[in-house]
Formats: sequence, structure tokens, C-alpha cells
Amino acid sequence: MIQLGDRALLKSEDGREYLVEITHRRFSTQHGFVELGDLVGSPYGTEVKSHLGKRFFVFSPTVEELVRHTKRQTQIIYPKEIGYLVTKLGISSGMTVVECGTGSGGLSTALAWFLRPDGRLITYEAREEFAELAGKNLAKAGLSHLVTIKVRDVVEDGFDEVEEADAVVLDMRTPWDLLPHAFKAMKGGAPLGVLVPTTNQVSETLRALKELPFASIEVCELMLRNWKPVADRLRPDDRMVAHTGFLVFARKVVRGEKRDDEPC
Amino acid sequence: MIQLGDRALLKSEDGREYLVEITHRRFSTQHGFVELGDLVGSPYGTEVKSHLGKRFFVFSPTVEELVRHTKRQTQIIYPKEIGYLVTKLGISSGMTVVECGTGSGGLSTALAWFLRPDGRLITYEAREEFAELAGKNLAKAGLSHLVTIKVRDVVEDGFDEVEEADAVVLDMRTPWDLLPHAFKAMKGGAPLGVLVPTTNQVSETLRALKELPFASIEVCELMLRNWKPVADRLRPDDRMVAHTGFLVFARKVVRGEKRDDEPC
Amino acid sequence: MIQLGDRALLKSEDGREYLVEITHRRFSTQHGFVELGDLVGSPYGTEVKSHLGKRFFVFSPTVEELVRHTKRQTQIIYPKEIGYLVTKLGISSGMTVVECGTGSGGLSTALAWFLRPDGRLITYEAREEFAELAGKNLAKAGLSHLVTIKVRDVVEDGFDEVEEADAVVLDMRTPWDLLPHAFKAMKGGAPLGVLVPTTNQVSETLRALKELPFASIEVCELMLRNWKPVADRLRPDDRMVAHTGFLVFARKVVRGEKRDDEPC
Amino acid sequence: MIQLGDRALLKSEDGREYLVEITHRRFSTQHGFVELGDLVGSPYGTEVKSHLGKRFFVFSPTVEELVRHTKRQTQIIYPKEIGYLVTKLGISSGMTVVECGTGSGGLSTALAWFLRPDGRLITYEAREEFAELAGKNLAKAGLSHLVTIKVRDVVEDGFDEVEEADAVVLDMRTPWDLLPHAFKAMKGGAPLGVLVPTTNQVSETLRALKELPFASIEVCELMLRNWKPVADRLRPDDRMVAHTGFLVFARKVVRGEKRDDEPC
Repeated sequence: MIQLGDRALLKSEDGREYLVEITHRRFSTQHGFVELGDLVGSPYGTEVKSHLGKRFFVFSPTVEELVRHTKRQTQIIYPKEIGYLVTKLGISSGMTVVECGTGSGGLSTALAWFLRPDGRLITYEAREEFAELAGKNLAKAGLSHLVTIKVRDVVEDGFDEVEEADAVVLDMRTPWDLLPHAFKAMKGGAPLGVLVPTTNQVSETLRALKELPFASIEVCELMLRNWKPVADRLRPDDRMVAHTGFLVFARKVVRGEKRDDEPC
Repeated sequence: MIQLGDRALLKSEDGREYLVEITHRRFSTQHGFVELGDLVGSPYGTEVKSHLGKRFFVFSPTVEELVRHTKRQTQIIYPKEIGYLVTKLGISSGMTVVECGTGSGGLSTALAWFLRPDGRLITYEAREEFAELAGKNLAKAGLSHLVTIKVRDVVEDGFDEVEEADAVVLDMRTPWDLLPHAFKAMKGGAPLGVLVPTTNQVSETLRALKELPFASIEVCELMLRNWKPVADRLRPDDRMVAHTGFLVFARKVVRGEKRDDEPC
Repeated sequence: MIQLGDRALLKSEDGREYLVEITHRRFSTQHGFVELGDLVGSPYGTEVKSHLGKRFFVFSPTVEELVRHTKRQTQIIYPKEIGYLVTKLGISSGMTVVECGTGSGGLSTALAWFLRPDGRLITYEAREEFAELAGKNLAKAGLSHLVTIKVRDVVEDGFDEVEEADAVVLDMRTPWDLLPHAFKAMKGGAPLGVLVPTTNQVSETLRALKELPFASIEVCELMLRNWKPVADRLRPDDRMVAHTGFLVFARKVVRGEKRDDEPC
Repeated sequence: MIQLGDRALLKSEDGREYLVEITHRRFSTQHGFVELGDLVGSPYGTEVKSHLGKRFFVFSPTVEELVRHTKRQTQIIYPKEIGYLVTKLGISSGMTVVECGTGSGGLSTALAWFLRPDGRLITYEAREEFAELAGKNLAKAGLSHLVTIKVRDVVEDGFDEVEEADAVVLDMRTPWDLLPHAFKAMKGGAPLGVLVPTTNQVSETLRALKELPFASIEVCELMLRNWKPVADRLRPDDRMVAHTGFLVFARKVVRGEKRDDEPC
């Protein structure tokens, strides 16, 4: 049932989307006004028409839609990377996850979603303005209670957490600078996930990973191709996103004593 | 801390993996025996050597590893599809999800993982033998308490759930036969996810979707390319999985009255 | 050496391209005028500046550039498909190739290029206006002497060639309608190449191929991903072409007598 | 018409291929003997049965098949890269092409094919044994008359050709070492094509290209996905080649005088 204060996705038949708060106001779209207040009490999935007669559907937003509608001043994180990341890191309720950097909070939103109801995300961001933006985005998504945002230059000052993190996610320009801090914050065996756009960054990250007791090191990339949903003329879209980033994964190894040979 | 009864992933330096239960027994690998009982009380991430001196790491399995090690008699579901599916459907704690068919329980394992601690998965399977296998796999993964497996031919008899499902997932040969049942089981606005391997099945599913009040219909496919994790000779693997399946998504629309024109 | 009458590619430093004829005239670009006549007698590869001081390079166009600059009223054929097609069909000097339909002549240009100096292309087009456009494009590319354009509805009237074609290429909406005609035109063992954008067309073509003595049937698609050519921040472009078409290949089989079982 | 001495492709219904010379001998396959001499005088495309009753087709090999059946001691060059390369470089009759290194002669075979009847390929190889193998492969393909193989360490001694090459192709471990030599060998405006497997090599090549007057620098990769040719269950193959190499292209720029700023 749609209620006042709900965050809802308004989607037109031709695919335009608006992430809105349900209030007693008219919401202006490219296809005319929609009276949001009239929706209260209707079930989600309801069709509504703008004053110009254009049909809209009202949906309760999925995490994919929340992330896609995050207000951004930083680079994009895509649902395909998010999905693979939470699956590879095994994000789930009850976990403690450490992230750096927060950026606009898109990835934080996804992590917090999958940590519900009782996990926690500690996310570090060097720039105050991004931390603020991310805070707003997380509040809008109704996920603030799961997230602590810390404004800090982690390269300099490290993470507060010591062997507490069930997973660490690095989404920043120089993740290699942070690997010793990440290692310290991680529980034994915990997975690390790193996102970087260039192959040079992948190489640099791999070099730094070899300097520490990390094992199970993997690099991959995901390509998503949308198809036109037309039964009798089925074919892929004309264009697609060619690249968002490379994902690097590793697992923290715990050793009794110092060794001179390194793990795979 | 590794404990008796834990399900753990034993991973050799050269990448061989064994999903084991921690008991007081010697576990036989291709690289010699490992005394699992000796691991009790050590932290996860610990290195252990087989009696032949081969190094292994002990990890707490992520959902990706659990699914990959599901005992299978049916087709494979891959982490890349799982990740995208749970993200697009917004699977999270507290939800009710309906799935058909269960198969070996690989996808059920993933869904249950993300439904923790208090969601529920009702999964339908026509063949008794698969239901049993899936039950065992879910038990091993420690996720049985979240899942109800129902042995039934859903095409004939439909789902028990009526407007209860926050999401429906169809992973079967003829999903189009089930769309009216799925529609009935779904809450208003709820997302539907369908996995099929062939383009003919995509076309058939799209035709059936147009017969019902579904909107926001999408088709896509994901390609995962692993790279060799070598900093100075960075390049993709020689070979990759070319195809697992197509994903079809849609959203249930709720209408006041009958209409003769269909949604997008 | 650049000569009067040459067809040349003018390329600005920022990647804008103009396919021009070298004459004594000033050529207008987005970055100012270039005096084309001044280039006569200079070697190809020469740098030239527009009257606004913008640098341009003058190249002798490759087949890829000629095809890319074909004036089009029809669908695009991309160099990636062209390259694979001429390699799979083994196009080379001295061959006789039959094509249908001509369209704007992009693919005809490529085929004629690789047939030089003494092969011949017979290309059929149902619509007079396309045949004219293709004729102009082939003339501009200096390849007209290798090509015969026939304006005809081949579905109705068939090809003139009988067991003459070393290869047949079908780039049209309903290639299945033409397969008996194509079969008749082909030499024994000759390869057939078909381009179609949708999976439904691929299925239809496969069904029709099975009705005739074709063997070695293959279906494939090619994806080209461009990378940003920046040594220290090496990464793929943000976006790419997701799909141009599927390629279907087959080989004509010659049989002594009628058989009731079909080839692979 | 199949003739004695022809090089022919014997292909079984289940896709096994044998590149054979037509002689009066019985040829042994996994499916029994085929009497090759009996084929003389039959048209290409003819069906023939082994003594075990297995059906084979006899085809005149395309360049794709010749290259695929090159005897190799070195890395593979795939038809998808070959096709794109010859299209981007505009290889055609009458040209002079310089290649380094020859390797097993797979790429040389393809280049020579498209240079027929009157182009020439000068190909350099440092190791005598590869030069010999390539010589044999080119002879078998009937293309020797177009190719000069030179055994030389080009890094040390350079190419003999001076501003003669219409195109240069580098398929070797350290192409950057050769760029000054390649530049010298090229005609003004001529295209350069480089194949390398790793991103580190791409970066190194890009750095070296910037040191010389090269323009129009591009990097790309091609992915080929085969589909199962089954009309009613149309879908991609399960597995595919994930990577063969990156392609780097550039064009030689000719300058009147020394400049201190570099081209794009």
C-alpha cells in the first residue's frame, strides 16, 4: 500500500523514471503533472495518469533503482558490478563491512541494502562535500541507520576497525595505498573487493596485494548487454556500456610466522 | 574462529576448492590429507598444510562459493546472473520470494542467503528427486530454515501464495506457462525475474508477458571475463563462459478495470 | 604522392574525418578551410593546416574508411563484420561474387576492394534509388569497373548466374526466400554468408538452410571494443556498439542422387 | 573440379576438418579411410564416404581455413583479428606489406592471400626454425611466390625497405623496439597494425608511438561468439575464446620540419 512519506519510483510507459517522495503535491514530469497525494492508499503497481493523459506506474524501488537514482558528483557504480560484488563478498544481514571511499554513496546504498536489518557499514570519505551528499542519498533511501560515514584521509590515518570487518570494499583512485590498512581492518579469511577503471590500476593493485598475505586473488570484468524486448524481432540494443571498471578480489590469509614465499 | 560443524572452504594455492564440514577426520584432497580437526579454534584465513606439504587456506564460504559448490543434477546458475538478479529484484531481509523450479537448489541457496535473517523463500519443484537434492544442499548451506520446498507441477496446480510475493523467480523450461500463476502470486508492483537459455524461450516469454498486465519489461544478458592476475603481463583469460542464459524482467501492474490496450 | 582527382581522407587531430576529392578548391571543415589544391605533389601522410591553424593529416583511404564514409540510406555494415566475412568467404582476386541486396553499396565496396584487380561482383538490388546511390558510392571509391549492379526483385526472378559464384552474400530482410536461388548460383563447395539483425531471422534462415544441401552451417556474432589509447590510464571506451548483426555461414554440397537424410 | 595436387579441406558431418593434398592415396581419419584419388574430376562440395560409411564434404579451403590449419609452434592468430586487420590496413592486390615476426606464418598466409595476384609480403623472423616452418606453411597454401622471408633480428638490423611499405604489421613480443624501423620502412600516410596480448604491451607500444610522428592511434579488441545453429533452440555456445590479443593501429605522418609538439 502506498503511504505518505514513501519513496516511490514513478515510471512512464516509455521508460522515464522519477524517484519521488509521496506527499500531497503535484509532481512535474516531462509528460505533465502527477498528483502524488492521490496515490496514497493504492497498492504499488498502480497505474496513474498525468494531467496530459500519459500513463505512469508506481513501484516500490528495488536496490537497483535506488542506486541508479543516487544523486552523483562522482563516478558511476553500475548494478552489474554491485550484484557481482555483493555475491562474491557474500554480503548479508549481520555483517560488518568497511568501505572507502564513499563518493556519492551509490555503492554504500547497495551494501547497506543487503546488510539489513542488523549489519553495519562503516564508510570513509576524504572530502566533506561527498560525505554530505552520500549522507543525504542514504537518508532518502531509508538506510542511514545502518551506515556510519567517517570523513578522513584513510591513506594517512587508517581505519578505526581492527580485525572487525567481514568484508572490505575499496572504490577509490589509489587502492594500493590502502591495502595495509584494509588488511588490518579485516577478519581472518575475509574477502576484499576493489573497483578500478584502468588496467594500470589493476596492475598496481596486484603488485601491492602480493606484498601482503592475501590469497585467492582474482581479476574480472562484467559486460551487460540489454536486448530489445520485442518477441518477433528479438535482438540486442544498438549500443551498450563498454566498460565501467575492473573488479579485483582477494582473501586475507592468517599466518603463524613470517614466511619468505608468497601465496598465489 | 573455526568450529566443529562449520561448513568451510578449503582452497589450495593452485585454486582447487573443497567445501567441507569441520569434523575430527582427515580430509583427502588431490594434494594429500588435511586434518580438519586440527583447524578447530584457529581463525578463518589460516594456512594449513596437507601431509604432502601442500598449502591450503581455510575460508568461511561466501554465497558465491556455496552456490558454485552446490551438488548439481540440473543446469548451472552462475554468480554473475545471481548477483544481477538479486540486485534487480531487490532481494533483502524480510521479503517473501516465490521460485519455480527449485532444480538442485543453487539459485534457492542464493535467494535464501540474501533473505536472511527473516525473509522466506517458497520454492516449487515438480520432480521429487530434485526437491530432495535441493533440500540437502540448502541444509548443508545452513539456510533450510528460510526455505519451504513444495513438490508440485505448478503449471497444473498453481502457487499457493496469493498476492504475497515481493518477487517471483522463474528458472524453468516453459516459464510462459506459469505467468498467470506468477502474476496471481505477486504483490502489486512486485518484480518478476525469468532465466532462460534460448532466444526462442525469450520470445515466447515476451509474448506471454504482453498478455498480462506486466510493465517495465527488460531482457538482458551478462558476460563475465576473468583476467589473469599478473601485474606485468595483465590480460584476460584465454577462454570464458560464452553464455549461461538470458534474463527477462517485468513488474506487475495493478489496474482498476479491464483495458484493451496493453502496457509497454 | 597526392594527385589531382585522388580520393583522400582528411583527418583532424581530434578525429574528424572528411572523404574528399583532391581538386583546386578550398574545402570547408568544422575547423576552417583547407586548400586541397596545395596538397598536390606532397606525399600522403602530410600535415596540412586549415586557415584557422587547425592541423589535418591527409591519408589514402583504406577500405575501412571508404566503407565508413559510404553515403547511406540503409542500415550500416561495420568493418568488424566485413573483415570476418571476407576472411570466412575467402574473398580474393579473380573470384566471382554474387550479392543481394546492394543497399547503399557499403558491403559492395568492401567486396570489390578485395576482388581487385580482376574479380567481379554482381550485386542485385530491388529498389532503383538504392542501386543509383550504390553506383555513385562505388564510382567515388574507384571500384565501379569490378561491379555490375542489377535492379531486380531476386525473390521473384532469381539470379542470372548459374553455378558461377565462388561466394554468395545475402544482406537483406528475408534471406530465406532467396536460398534456392543462391544455391543455384553457387559453384560446388562455395561458401554462403548471410547477415541479419534479429534472432528470429537467424532461426528462419537456419530452417531454410536445412531444406537444401548446405553443410558446415555456422552462426556467430562479433563484438568490437575500442580502448582509449592512453598509456598510463589504459581502459576501454565508455560505450560501444552492442550489436550490428548475426552472421550465418554455410557451404554448398553437391550430391550424386537424391537423399532423404539431410547434412549437418 | 577437384584435381591432383589440389589442397582441399575434408570436413566430416560432425565438424572434423583435415587439410589434405589430393593424391592417389587413402587418407586416414578418425572415422575411417577416404580414397582421395577417387575425388579427382568431381566438383568441390562433393560428398564422399569413408570406408566406415561416414560422410565427408570436400571444400576448396578459404583463407580462414588455411590459417586455422597452419602448423603452429607459436601463438595463434585468429580469423577475427585477421579480418579486422586486413580491413583496417586495407590490404589488397598490388601492395607491398612488411611484417615482423613471421612466426609459424599464419598471419603471413592471410596477408599473402589478400595481396594476390601481384602484391608482395616481406616478412622478417629472427629464428631460423620458425622461418622454415612458415616457408613450408606458405608453400602448402600455394602463396610462396608472393612472400619473401628474411631471417634477421630486426631490432638490431632494421628493415631493408625504405619508404616502400603500404602497410606494416608487427606481431612480436616487443613491438615498441621496432617502431623507428617500421616508421622508416613505411610510405607516408601508411597504416601500422600491431598485435599484442597484454595491456602492459599496449601501454608500452602507445608510449613508443608518441615518440614518433604517428597519428590516428587506436586500440581495440574483438570478441567472437559462436552460436549453436539450431533454429528452435537458438543460443550462443557454452564457451568462447575470451582473448587473443589487442590491436593497435596508427598512421605515419610526414612533416616538413622538426616540431616539438606531438601528434594526437
